[in-house]
Amino acid sequence: MSLSLLSKNHHKWIRRLHQKKYRLEEKAFIAEGLNSLQSAMEMTHHPVKEVIVEKNYAESIKNCISDDIPVYTCSKKEMESISTEETPQGIIIICSETEFSFDELEKNPSNNLLYLDKVSDPGNLGTILRTAAWFDMKQILLSPFSVDLFNTKVVRASAGAIFGMEIYQSIDFDRLFQFAKRKNYKLTAAVPEGGIPINRWKKTRKNILLLGHEAKGLSKEIIEQADQRISIPSQGNVESLNLAIAAAIILYEIAGR
Amino acid sequence: MSLSLLSKNHHKWIRRLHQKKYRLEEKAFIAEGLNSLQSAMEMTHHPVKEVIVEKNYAESIKNCISDDIPVYTCSKKEMESISTEETPQGIIIICSETEFSFDELEKNPSNNLLYLDKVSDPGNLGTILRTAAWFDMKQILLSPFSVDLFNTKVVRASAGAIFGMEIYQSIDFDRLFQFAKRKNYKLTAAVPEGGIPINRWKKTRKNILLLGHEAKGLSKEIIEQADQRISIPSQGNVESLNLAIAAAIILYEIAGR
Repeated sequence: MSLSLLSKNHHKWIRRLHQKKYRLEEKAFIAEGLNSLQSAMEMTHHPVKEVIVEKNYAESIKNCISDDIPVYTCSKKEMESISTEETPQGIIIICSETEFSFDELEKNPSNNLLYLDKVSDPGNLGTILRTAAWFDMKQILLSPFSVDLFNTKVVRASAGAIFGMEIYQSIDFDRLFQFAKRKNYKLTAAVPEGGIPINRWKKTRKNILLLGHEAKGLSKEIIEQADQRISIPSQGNVESLNLAIAAAIILYEIAGR
Repeated sequence: MSLSLLSKNHHKWIRRLHQKKYRLEEKAFIAEGLNSLQSAMEMTHHPVKEVIVEKNYAESIKNCISDDIPVYTCSKKEMESISTEETPQGIIIICSETEFSFDELEKNPSNNLLYLDKVSDPGNLGTILRTAAWFDMKQILLSPFSVDLFNTKVVRASAGAIFGMEIYQSIDFDRLFQFAKRKNYKLTAAVPEGGIPINRWKKTRKNILLLGHEAKGLSKEIIEQADQRISIPSQGNVESLNLAIAAAIILYEIAGR
């Protein structure tokens, strides 16, 4: 492991990656902490470009990274300035954004797919990715106007899962619909109420689960075009479940149970 | 509905309620938004003491509240200063903290109880409350050293559920253990791995689910004293589930499925 000191210009460049605009320009994003570093090194979807480490933590990462990855050291104060976390973990990883095109999905699609329509909360998206990975769903599709996949809060909430998944961005529902028809997938829309109760729902071999926006849910058009609708029956008097929670219960029934 | 202008001293008093110390002193806490107001008015556990509303929103709340509750109006700028949210919803509710004592639980306990040991993330606690309420579990026990129940992030993530639940704070596990033995509850500890797979687990009529800290899980002592251990089997290669997600899947099996 070869260490260099973090320069001022480099420092500035990393801070810019906090913003979506620059992430898009640089095709790079930030992840933080030892767990992320280990996940990013193990899985190869988004290659590690470089690591920035607080001086005191340099020793702790040396067994995690290969020699060809540049490592830069910085002070605690500098780490606080480039970190996106309230209490920085002392390790920042810069990864390349790999884009997955729908054409690749067509070649080798899994039997269970998940389509997220306009999910807007980064914590929810990251948590859904983490849960999907737990149940071994690794191909996820995001609609246009979703929260940015490489938002630092998404990356953090995914707890490393983002590094091992094929995530297809900006996929129009129309395209997915055509694909589903051609490949014999059933489109299953999750709706707050009135759908088949999830515990009585019969899985089909090839299924695409559709989940919508936190407050607005799926659009009327998508719900109408889906082959079936499912809901999580409520026994209490609260209005709704958190989106990531609803997703988890459905993923558990589809892929986990 | 009688409106008064928010005074400077009153403004200061509300800002103090952002801190746990003052919430404890005043036995009052903050909730925000129209949904919270409706939940707080419908359910009576934590009575609404007063409402502060941005001038433009005064009309929108008039059908939600009874005449005996004081309503104070303020400017947008004042609202931004007393709100705990990044984008204030224009409505702040001050509620009384009602404490539930374990003696009350002894009188009328439900068959399904949930004990949370040292849960530290406010978003997780609030989300777990919301999910438990969805599955009609309304008696929740918190251990000592949990995050403050009336933390504004807990209240927000609970999405109104907090107003309809009996939440018992600072309950020692020893006390719960004695209670469980006396009343014939089974203590079921959720552990990351090695427990009975949740989908093959047989429910008993009276059950107390035990969930631990986000990173550390339940203590060794609690796991050993539990009657059984359950786990959510993983199919993927991520390390763990988010605590609120794990809680949701287990609550779904216990109370919802």
